[in-house]
Amino acid sequence: MRFNKKRRKLEIRAWYRVDLIVGAYTVDTTQIRKALLKLGAKRLLIQSPLGLRAVATELAKTLEAEGYSVLLSNSACWGACDVAYQEAENLEADAIIHLGHTKFMKHDKIPTIYIPCHYWNPAPLINLIPRISNVLNDAGARRIGLGASIQWSIHLELVKTELKKSGIEALTHEPKMFAVEEAQVLGCDYTALKPLEDKVDAFVVVGSVFHALGMALVSDKPTYAIDPAAQSIRELTENKRRIINQRYANIMKFKEAERIGIIVSTKPGQKRINIVNPIARILQNHGKEVYVISADEVNEQLIIEYGLDAYVNTACPRLSIEDQVRFSRPLLLPAEVLVAVGILEWSFLVEKGLIMFPWAYSDENSKTVWRLIAGEAYGRRQVSQYEV
Amino acid sequence: MRFNKKRRKLEIRAWYRVDLIVGAYTVDTTQIRKALLKLGAKRLLIQSPLGLRAVATELAKTLEAEGYSVLLSNSACWGACDVAYQEAENLEADAIIHLGHTKFMKHDKIPTIYIPCHYWNPAPLINLIPRISNVLNDAGARRIGLGASIQWSIHLELVKTELKKSGIEALTHEPKMFAVEEAQVLGCDYTALKPLEDKVDAFVVVGSVFHALGMALVSDKPTYAIDPAAQSIRELTENKRRIINQRYANIMKFKEAERIGIIVSTKPGQKRINIVNPIARILQNHGKEVYVISADEVNEQLIIEYGLDAYVNTACPRLSIEDQVRFSRPLLLPAEVLVAVGILEWSFLVEKGLIMFPWAYSDENSKTVWRLIAGEAYGRRQVSQYEV
Repeated sequence: MRFNKKRRKLEIRAWYRVDLIVGAYTVDTTQIRKALLKLGAKRLLIQSPLGLRAVATELAKTLEAEGYSVLLSNSACWGACDVAYQEAENLEADAIIHLGHTKFMKHDKIPTIYIPCHYWNPAPLINLIPRISNVLNDAGARRIGLGASIQWSIHLELVKTELKKSGIEALTHEPKMFAVEEAQVLGCDYTALKPLEDKVDAFVVVGSVFHALGMALVSDKPTYAIDPAAQSIRELTENKRRIINQRYANIMKFKEAERIGIIVSTKPGQKRINIVNPIARILQNHGKEVYVISADEVNEQLIIEYGLDAYVNTACPRLSIEDQVRFSRPLLLPAEVLVAVGILEWSFLVEKGLIMFPWAYSDENSKTVWRLIAGEAYGRRQVSQYEV
Repeated sequence: MRFNKKRRKLEIRAWYRVDLIVGAYTVDTTQIRKALLKLGAKRLLIQSPLGLRAVATELAKTLEAEGYSVLLSNSACWGACDVAYQEAENLEADAIIHLGHTKFMKHDKIPTIYIPCHYWNPAPLINLIPRISNVLNDAGARRIGLGASIQWSIHLELVKTELKKSGIEALTHEPKMFAVEEAQVLGCDYTALKPLEDKVDAFVVVGSVFHALGMALVSDKPTYAIDPAAQSIRELTENKRRIINQRYANIMKFKEAERIGIIVSTKPGQKRINIVNPIARILQNHGKEVYVISADEVNEQLIIEYGLDAYVNTACPRLSIEDQVRFSRPLLLPAEVLVAVGILEWSFLVEKGLIMFPWAYSDENSKTVWRLIAGEAYGRRQVSQYEV
């Protein structure tokens, strides 16, 4: 966890600096040009998540015309945990332009310019305000915790102002794990919302169900997913219930499994190699046959081709939440393994919102989970995270 | 092209050295142990093609029991062009055990042990001999060029002996591009067969249609695909005709394309960065808008997400042959681009068997293609491959 990153307060952005608009997205090419000049970079790799590839090609065209040599990456780019350092190194790029996300990694092995690509048009969000107000008022929520994906976060000041007109107070907070901007949530970081839990009646997350569902999993307060693109407002108690049932069913299946694959990611921000050995020990101590599988993309091919009975996911936690339905075998998260082998209560994980541990947020309860992982593996009860 | 690799003659293998059998495959663990001791390697990455993952897990179990720390790779591993050096580096493996293929790369960036995994049982192949003899006799083929994928190549001496009984002489030859064993073919290397062209009535390739079809594309002699697993014998003139029509149709579509993506592979043996710039120049000279896309896996996601009109494939040539049907846009090979822009005759490529250039084999005619690529790009008619 990092507390020392320069964080930006919510503000109305200086729009004149956003000099390229592609479809719904803004690209701050001035920031890119300045950074490239400073780096003296000539050969660039542009990385973009699926959905932002038209932005990437447009940016490539612009930069090629200015004399840069540009490569467009086909890697999936699920987040800024997934920076293509090795691809850039492989193809001798001087710098990476990473679109769609804020900086996640502490150190960039190859100079990387992070360009979030905000939605320039607040209208789809502002149009929803009357419906949001009604829903919140009906639920008796007078004070809410407000968060958003980076694409929408620049418009949250407007949302705050508009909600105030209906007597709803929206609180925002700074994140302290991986996110950078005030009120920003990631699929694995809800530290901009969780600290508001005791002060609010509900959480409102602007982005998609994906962004909001993670919050619903770490808190018992009602969580509303606002998706301006789909013009939808959804309260996620039922989604959360379904996921928790699905997780429990998979933990039960995992108990019966004999041959287990522990998946370790090669993505720079998803590589949690330090958790692999203790989990392997715990499983072996409980009579399981253990294999360690390294993967860039964790996909159905892995599950099918290795043909093991069950898997442990130390890569992106959301693979076990959203993608489990695509997998024919259980894909447990590290804390869930403790439940499967009977050294932690399922109710503890659910009530404390720690299913995603070591992601999502961290508190005193999560230290308990870590001590169990490390202590159970090595026969000691008290082990610091840094000893393993 | 390399002529200096130590090549192995056909021989009946010393079976006692193959001390692990998993399903249909042999694994020479003695060779692995010797190599590991010599390297002093402790932390290993096992790479296996789809279909050999059960071999990989069994080998992992064996080596773990001997004190090695083993990672199983989830990378697809399409050939020994696709060695997971970066994955090994990323996860700090001391050595790679690469299953299912012979050495392809000139230098291994990380020590790599290549274990071909032959089929131990010749019966499915030998059972087919009477049918093969009949088919060849009916076609009047008295002398054939014989090749095989590495999985079957150890059984070719038996095939030769058996065919001789029916009066058919089978010739074999050493490869000189990427393959290692006598008579061995790869999807991109037919140099073990092509030199026999003038001496034989037909070619017989043991493996799958995939292995044989590549040969059919580089020669006008009838080519028979022998697939012992499927117990099938197929003459490929019709398959070849279909592929050639498909390629021509895609070249025609490519002509109309305005925005072109040139794909450069990050796989060590598929990275042909030197061909990208001249092809880009040629396309720009002919009024196309060009983007360079780097990819590990070339897949439908790339084609759809980048949304360009057409693509040039400088990675594995077989992507344009076998996988084109899965792609909604033309994926031309470098030599085909010359046809699309009107500086080479399609009939020249087809008749000389040079569709796959710079892969498959190399002769005087292929030098013409290279001179056209380099010369057309830079306005000179005579450019050596090494100048670009």
